[in-house]
Amino acid sequence: MNAAWLDQIEWTADGLVPAIAQDHSSGRVLMFAWMNRESLALTVAEGYAVYWSRSRQRLWRKGEESGHRQKIIDLQLDCDGDVILLKIEQEGGIACHTGRESCFFRSFKDGDWQIGEAVLKDPKAIYR
Amino acid sequence: MNAAWLDQIEWTADGLVPAIAQDHSSGRVLMFAWMNRESLALTVAEGYAVYWSRSRQRLWRKGEESGHRQKIIDLQLDCDGDVILLKIEQEGGIACHTGRESCFFRSFKDGDWQIGEAVLKDPKAIYR
Repeated sequence: MNAAWLDQIEWTADGLVPAIAQDHSSGRVLMFAWMNRESLALTVAEGYAVYWSRSRQRLWRKGEESGHRQKIIDLQLDCDGDVILLKIEQEGGIACHTGRESCFFRSFKDGDWQIGEAVLKDPKAIYR
Repeated sequence: MNAAWLDQIEWTADGLVPAIAQDHSSGRVLMFAWMNRESLALTVAEGYAVYWSRSRQRLWRKGEESGHRQKIIDLQLDCDGDVILLKIEQEGGIACHTGRESCFFRSFKDGDWQIGEAVLKDPKAIYR
């Protein structure tokens, strides 16, 4: 795909760019993933977040199994052109595969990472 | 440094972990950088963000030149243990080396990345 806006991105040697998904209304950071050129182009074309799954080495339409899609409200690029910030509307209110709103549910307290957020939905009920 | 909480982190092959800095009061995502084991330990010990500069291959106490330090309010870890979210108080109100509040000052509009945020302070006056 030829597009000047895609060429402006500083892709890693593996052809990826880090992507941060943030709830556009609450401002909560929900998750972090990676995109390649195709997934970013598809994100813009489809209006929903499409990532590149490094573990599965394939396109990952967020919510393809869970239904928890991420509607794009705004896409932002950082000063160095090597990180994408997605302002999204999180369908189902759950971004994390553990059934929580956000993947960042552990805080550093008293010398350890402590869970500070409840599971909203049992993952077994999400991924059937 | 031996510490169970550091061992819980899934470091990359290079010994790094991505770190997202977010303004704790406004919720704005300000920047993205990397940490190694030592910089994360120092972040906790000093109470201010310390990153690992991949370009300079050295510890980077954010604000060491600019004075724009990032006071740690909360440190969060994601579900996979491979991304850190820093809730911070941004001294000087400027996180970006371009003199803007946030590094994410470009939005995708009409097929291109467009600057939507003013420079608050001339970088020449920041880095003297």
